[in-house]
Amino acid sequence: MSFTPHPLDPSLDLELVRHVPVSPAAVYAAWTDPDSVRQWFAPRPYSIPVCEIDLRPGGGFRTVMLSPEGEQMMDSTGCYLEIVPDERLVWTAALTTGYRPQPSDMPFTAVLELRPDGSGGCHYRAVAIHQDPEGAAQHASMGFHEGWGTVVDQLVEHLQGSS
Amino acid sequence: MSFTPHPLDPSLDLELVRHVPVSPAAVYAAWTDPDSVRQWFAPRPYSIPVCEIDLRPGGGFRTVMLSPEGEQMMDSTGCYLEIVPDERLVWTAALTTGYRPQPSDMPFTAVLELRPDGSGGCHYRAVAIHQDPEGAAQHASMGFHEGWGTVVDQLVEHLQGSS
Repeated sequence: MSFTPHPLDPSLDLELVRHVPVSPAAVYAAWTDPDSVRQWFAPRPYSIPVCEIDLRPGGGFRTVMLSPEGEQMMDSTGCYLEIVPDERLVWTAALTTGYRPQPSDMPFTAVLELRPDGSGGCHYRAVAIHQDPEGAAQHASMGFHEGWGTVVDQLVEHLQGSS
Repeated sequence: MSFTPHPLDPSLDLELVRHVPVSPAAVYAAWTDPDSVRQWFAPRPYSIPVCEIDLRPGGGFRTVMLSPEGEQMMDSTGCYLEIVPDERLVWTAALTTGYRPQPSDMPFTAVLELRPDGSGGCHYRAVAIHQDPEGAAQHASMGFHEGWGTVVDQLVEHLQGSS
């Protein structure tokens, strides 16, 4: 399948674009292995003690996030929609395991796109797709850009530390 | 990919199972061609003047249903999730084009499963997957079994009439 980037709707979508000095395959592996996700997916000092991944279209995932004091901040579930190893992951918070609809305060679909940069690194793009401008504004004000940016730094650190 | 039927959750899912005397390929074609859908998808005397289908994972669809008096009863949109020609279609009303979440009074995901019966006919199974028992009960009381059953009869009639 040829690569078609998600066409951004600036009124409804939030986008994070980065260049990272690790390969698309390494980034993809870090996003899809629960042991790895626990290491970098929460902006520190928050932590992810629980990560469950059923990596197939229709498979569910779950992450639990704790505050530094050990308080549960989030218990997030969702459903994988598209899986193209080393290149593209799509999942949504509007569905859970088996594509079952689930209620959500801020339903969004996420697209992760990874492209080789020709010299071993990766063009990294994450897009959060919302149902209305209010949802996008709420996600932005909750710190989408800072949060998703911080975890990319932590992801790279994790990969460089473990290589 | 081997065929794995949707595992039914009787408290959340509604199921229609039928045997029909037309092939899985013919049923699949009738479900995926807009001109065909317009012929059988609304229980008569209701009608479907508008049917739009973008048949790919993440592609949207839309149907508009009119009463016999010409009043618009429904304008339904959704998103295709899985497409296995002649065998399986999965779509959801919880998302629209490009996997974008959309508000819905009664969000459900639908699975259509088609299996050859060995003598030219088809084992036909449709499952509607809801987020809670209330959603399933609401869909049942709106006439899921009667409505989805009637349109299977109309689908077969359409295929036999056009063959």
